[in-house]
Order: sequence, then C-alpha cells, then structure tokens
Amino acid sequence: MVVDAAGSRVHAVHDTAVTRQTAQYYVDCLERRDWAGLAALLADDVVYEMPQTRERIRGRDAFVQFNIDYPGDWHMLLRQVVADGSLAALWLDVRVGGEQMDACVWLEMSDGGLISRIVDYWPEPYDPPPGREHLVERW
Amino acid sequence: MVVDAAGSRVHAVHDTAVTRQTAQYYVDCLERRDWAGLAALLADDVVYEMPQTRERIRGRDAFVQFNIDYPGDWHMLLRQVVADGSLAALWLDVRVGGEQMDACVWLEMSDGGLISRIVDYWPEPYDPPPGREHLVERW
Repeated sequence: MVVDAAGSRVHAVHDTAVTRQTAQYYVDCLERRDWAGLAALLADDVVYEMPQTRERIRGRDAFVQFNIDYPGDWHMLLRQVVADGSLAALWLDVRVGGEQMDACVWLEMSDGGLISRIVDYWPEPYDPPPGREHLVERW
Repeated sequence: MVVDAAGSRVHAVHDTAVTRQTAQYYVDCLERRDWAGLAALLADDVVYEMPQTRERIRGRDAFVQFNIDYPGDWHMLLRQVVADGSLAALWLDVRVGGEQMDACVWLEMSDGGLISRIVDYWPEPYDPPPGREHLVERW
C-alpha cells in the first residue's frame, strides 16, 4: 500500500475511476443479461440487501440466479453514477412493461476491485401529506 | 479554468473534497436546525424534488421554510456520503420518534460550490413477492 501523501492521492483517484467503471458495467451487464460478465464483477462472498423487505442474498451464485429468475421484461437506464474511492451510488430509471420506477443502489468494492456489497432501494410513489401546498409545485 | 491534464486532475480532486464536505455539512445543518448555516450552502435558485410524490420546491427561502415547518422531532444520521466532482449521494438513517426510515439523497453543486439541486427518496417498507425464498434470508 502506498502511504505517502502524493501516492495516496494518485491511488485514490485510480480507485475512483475503476469503481465508476465497475458500477457502470454492473448496470450494463444486468441490462444485457450478460450473466458471465456480471459474475466476473462480483466477489465470491458478495452480499446483496434490500432494506425495504429486509431481504439478504449471500454469494455470487445466488445473486446471479436471483437476477436470472427476476420476472418481467425489465430494463434499466443509468441516470447517475457517483463514485468515491471504493464506494459508488447508482441512480437508475427502471422500466417493466409500461411501469417506470427509480432505484437507488449503493455499492462497495473489495480491495481486489470486485463488488462486495450491494444495497438496493425501490422507492414507490405515495401521496404527499397536506399542509405544504403553499411551498410546493406538483408534476 | 485549468485545462492541462495535471491541473484538471487536481481541480477534480479539489471539487470532490469540497462537495463531500458540503454534503456532510448539509446533513449537519439540518440535524442541528441551523437554518442560517443551511441557507449559506444553497444556491438562490436551488431546486428540491421528491419524485415519489412528484413534488418540487423552487428557491432557497421556500426550501429552508419547508424544513423549518417539517413536523415531528426528526433526526438524521449520515450512513454514507459518496462525492464525485460536483455530484454527491447521501444515505441517511432518519428517525422520527420511534420510527426509523432510510433516505437516499442526490445533490448537485453549482460552479460556485453551492447546492443547486436536491432529490430526495424516502423508500418505505413493503412485503417481498413470493418465489425467491430459496435464495433469500430475512432480517
């Protein structure tokens, strides 16, 4: 590991670029149903979590299978990727048939540059509470 | 603007550090109800959006007022900040009384380093669909 100030910065910049690329490729592999490509991005012991349903999937094989089995003709478009060292956040536009949803995904990379943790949020529409109409416009 | 390769990289590293600090300070100001501090981080024409309710608030004054008015004794803890140039993503643990929610927040900075866009997601719990129990553990 590089420990001097200049070296550390170069190392961090490099990590961020690799993380950003891996995060983009993750979405690309899912969209293309490239299961071998997806598997190659994942750590053996990757952990996938959906906090809204309190579900957790452990391991590369189970996570790839989960995606292979996922029902519907789903498609995802990368709206934004934010990468920072070994962390990334993905903002996705996901469509299944005529339905559109946004998703927020948090990724962590292992030291070896593989995805070691994925946390998915699937925020659903809801009605706004009353009392703030004077500050707000709707679309 | 610095246009040579080395200068651009230093500029990008600097932007990211400032963005990360601004994102952290944004959460800190909200948590401390430091409305002057919050206002100082925001562009005049900041736009705040909640895609789940299709609500939009335009302008610093309206957005600060929205937060002043927000009901309940809410508290937020920064779980993760991911900053990348002029973009940041915040993963928050938000508590109101005994209730806990996660939030995903996307920030954009203006050229002047002020927050120009905020997009909030408030993903609510839901029941998992059947058929994936063999791949999944619950917590």
